[in-house]
Amino acid sequence: MQNQSVIRRRDLLALIGTIAGSSAMYQAMTSLGFASESAYKGPLKLAGDVKGASVLILGAGLAGMTAALELRKAGYKVQILEFNNRAGGRNWSIRGGDSFTELGGFKQTCQFEQGLYLNPGPWRIPYHHRALLDYCRRLNVTLEPFIQLNHNAYLHATRAFDGKPQRFRSIKADFQGGVSELLAKVSQQGRLDEFVSKEDQEILLQALREWGALDRDYKYNANLRSADVRGYARDPGGGLMGDPLPSDPISLQELLRSRMWRYVQSFAHYDFQTTMFQPVGGMDMIGKAFAREVGDLIRYNAKVTQIQQNGSGVTVSYVDTASPSAVQQATADWCICTIPLPILSQLPVDVSGPMKNAIDSLPYAASVKVGLQFKRRFWEEDEAIYGGISYTDLPIRNIGYPNYGFNRGGRGVLLGAYLYEGANSFEFTAMTPAERVASAVEFGAKIHPQYKSEFENGVAVAWHRVPFTLGCSGEWTEAGRAQHYRNLCQIDGRIALAGEHASQLPAWQEGAILSALDAITRLHERVVKT
Amino acid sequence: MQNQSVIRRRDLLALIGTIAGSSAMYQAMTSLGFASESAYKGPLKLAGDVKGASVLILGAGLAGMTAALELRKAGYKVQILEFNNRAGGRNWSIRGGDSFTELGGFKQTCQFEQGLYLNPGPWRIPYHHRALLDYCRRLNVTLEPFIQLNHNAYLHATRAFDGKPQRFRSIKADFQGGVSELLAKVSQQGRLDEFVSKEDQEILLQALREWGALDRDYKYNANLRSADVRGYARDPGGGLMGDPLPSDPISLQELLRSRMWRYVQSFAHYDFQTTMFQPVGGMDMIGKAFAREVGDLIRYNAKVTQIQQNGSGVTVSYVDTASPSAVQQATADWCICTIPLPILSQLPVDVSGPMKNAIDSLPYAASVKVGLQFKRRFWEEDEAIYGGISYTDLPIRNIGYPNYGFNRGGRGVLLGAYLYEGANSFEFTAMTPAERVASAVEFGAKIHPQYKSEFENGVAVAWHRVPFTLGCSGEWTEAGRAQHYRNLCQIDGRIALAGEHASQLPAWQEGAILSALDAITRLHERVVKT
Repeated sequence: MQNQSVIRRRDLLALIGTIAGSSAMYQAMTSLGFASESAYKGPLKLAGDVKGASVLILGAGLAGMTAALELRKAGYKVQILEFNNRAGGRNWSIRGGDSFTELGGFKQTCQFEQGLYLNPGPWRIPYHHRALLDYCRRLNVTLEPFIQLNHNAYLHATRAFDGKPQRFRSIKADFQGGVSELLAKVSQQGRLDEFVSKEDQEILLQALREWGALDRDYKYNANLRSADVRGYARDPGGGLMGDPLPSDPISLQELLRSRMWRYVQSFAHYDFQTTMFQPVGGMDMIGKAFAREVGDLIRYNAKVTQIQQNGSGVTVSYVDTASPSAVQQATADWCICTIPLPILSQLPVDVSGPMKNAIDSLPYAASVKVGLQFKRRFWEEDEAIYGGISYTDLPIRNIGYPNYGFNRGGRGVLLGAYLYEGANSFEFTAMTPAERVASAVEFGAKIHPQYKSEFENGVAVAWHRVPFTLGCSGEWTEAGRAQHYRNLCQIDGRIALAGEHASQLPAWQEGAILSALDAITRLHERVVKT
Repeated sequence: MQNQSVIRRRDLLALIGTIAGSSAMYQAMTSLGFASESAYKGPLKLAGDVKGASVLILGAGLAGMTAALELRKAGYKVQILEFNNRAGGRNWSIRGGDSFTELGGFKQTCQFEQGLYLNPGPWRIPYHHRALLDYCRRLNVTLEPFIQLNHNAYLHATRAFDGKPQRFRSIKADFQGGVSELLAKVSQQGRLDEFVSKEDQEILLQALREWGALDRDYKYNANLRSADVRGYARDPGGGLMGDPLPSDPISLQELLRSRMWRYVQSFAHYDFQTTMFQPVGGMDMIGKAFAREVGDLIRYNAKVTQIQQNGSGVTVSYVDTASPSAVQQATADWCICTIPLPILSQLPVDVSGPMKNAIDSLPYAASVKVGLQFKRRFWEEDEAIYGGISYTDLPIRNIGYPNYGFNRGGRGVLLGAYLYEGANSFEFTAMTPAERVASAVEFGAKIHPQYKSEFENGVAVAWHRVPFTLGCSGEWTEAGRAQHYRNLCQIDGRIALAGEHASQLPAWQEGAILSALDAITRLHERVVKT
């Protein structure tokens, strides 16, 4: 036609300066600072002559495999000993047909339908975990969003609202509305004058009205304005279906006493802010991707029994789990040990007193996850809950809805319980797997009555009974960290530790990777210097 | 092993009652109300003898195709006339190679890389749009999350913070922190005593501390507690990388004056709450899915020129857009007209005065969207922004980041401007497409300086210049709706209107579908009754 306006960069240059802005527009631009706040500075570069040095890595989890990948690239001779018959460690997904035997001998064989899974360990990746995200990119792990905040999921408290679950959106809106109304009232009565100028109070009132969904008189009431945040009694429709109807807010008093406000910030913490991710197909896609790179270095089914070192190298004794009587040995110049501390603390290890104390002093969190398969995704079909988490004060604490296969019908697996610390975690750990599953169904049915007719099968992982970790993750206290953390992370002779326990990000995969990168960076400095 | 605990439903039954709960646990369950609040009551059932009746549908957008699908299923003879050479209407995605000519003759041919697209019309689907979601499921449209709230995206105001964009998380956290500190202070000074009991104020203080990230003295300060919501100066790392460092909050005064709080609730409105969706591959996957069902009923390139009716039927005149001189006619017993009102109001239409007044009285929103392709996804790589929206007071208003292809590198297309109403929308509409794109790049570079070196090409759609709508969507006022809405939606003789304009959900695809379902339900009642 008359004006074929294909717009390319070169066309743009002709237009710039003539449109919508002065030349001053660019002034501030170059001074904008967008530096990453992450401890991760991009792919590791270990330059220098490694002089044929060898490194023995204990554990093929993310820390161990990160170390292996980078050390081999830098020229080291690398070997990994791994207890399991698979790589990944806590980076783990359970699918139909998978078997797992926990401490005590209880064996479960998962019966999930093909394509469904439970991530018993890590299940989400924050946007600021730059190292993990970079490895996902380099190793071609496809990601999809993990929904942390679902406004339509439930908050549930046994003793509030007759035990009836409330929608997250309503509690959040009513809390903001109640708080805003209160502060607006105080402002209008002149009681803020000594703290905030009159001018700023005018702006504050505008902000509170917007942010609390208040009406013109700064009241939080049942009307279409509050319905627009807390939800409607009847949604807007089409044609002559009828006008939308507002819903009734919960009073601030009732809300405060319900304690449901405890959950309202769950999504706002740095670790849980949007945008979060999960690998398409299960968290273990990451472990498998690492194993594609370094699998040839791994000796599986190798249970470490002793770690010795002297001035010239490291000797590690291990047995094959299938023939535990025959002790074998592996040697190297250096050792990166990622064995979880509850196991490492039980082994004879040649390290200095301070490191040994650190190893022995860190308790691991008791965590339990239960995966439940249902005949249909009733949470989506009946309740319009797509992904995200419902919170309850029942022992199960969380119900996590699957963040894949949305809106397509069919079976679904949800996270029926996620216990983390507290007495209930230990209670659930003490149960048999079958009891854990039954209990998760029993409790969950208080929130979703459909459980009773739709439940099919389940699996349950209690981390204190997982043979390859004996706990979920390092549970640091402030005092414990002050006393032991540096000693844990120092290179001790020829041995360095790595893993989430040796990081400021316990329980996170990013912590495992960053600790490995930090440990091998320091080790490499020693190697090239000597 | 000794205890093969495969857990099935039948096993569960044996365990229930023995574990973790009294029989009273179930009492409240059956009384839990989970009724859908949606106006959609599930798949339409049009029962009864339609007596061979025929329906002519004008427009093959979502309203028209919904009507066609359901009416044919109920036994009607159905035909659709469609102006475009494709189905879908505003349900539309633009990809590389697509051409589009707007009013004024400007033709654009999109140069996006394969796999990248812009949705110039609707781009997101709320979880409570039950009808649309049900059609997506029935028609096998795969969905993925649409990220509305991204804590790491930017808020930008030209005159605040020297024009430097702020992270959403920081503004949100600082607003909540400042408000909470203020209210806590007032409470501690006894100034809430007449509104809230002392007991409840104790709970309120706990809630404010939690929700505002206040310290033990109810102050909002730079510390690791506020860093955990607003972000760190240095993130927690691994090994001996160094301790995490807090960042400095913005004072409530500066925050109030910045006006950035205006954006903080953007994600909390019912229409934008999690979980939102988009079809995998582009919004037009929905239109294409409908067209797979009813495409055989559509006559494309048919421009309606007149709509007549009498007591026995409807006659619609139209021309083929390729040979506009030859007027053709289609007849039927009934007509469902989904033609957008800016076009319909210009046609001779045989309807009563009140409906005609309604048709003539509804203005359509001026909306402009600009899609920009960049050489690399710098917003992800440099700035850790994955999906979601940055907000600015610049004319472009929104920068929308793609919610697909996360973390994989390569080129990306973002929404470089989304203007909706206001003077800037008309300014952008008055520009040539090339100028719109240039302007979006110019303004966007104030937020992302990388624009200047990474930009490749763009497309721009100004809805007032889109020939098949002449506007974005019905812009109802409260007064206008009170006067005209019922008249617009009543069946007028043998003609009923449908589309987002005939709904309480203007601009939403759900409104189009619900209005069609409502119109044909009422029409069908007439047919089976007579």
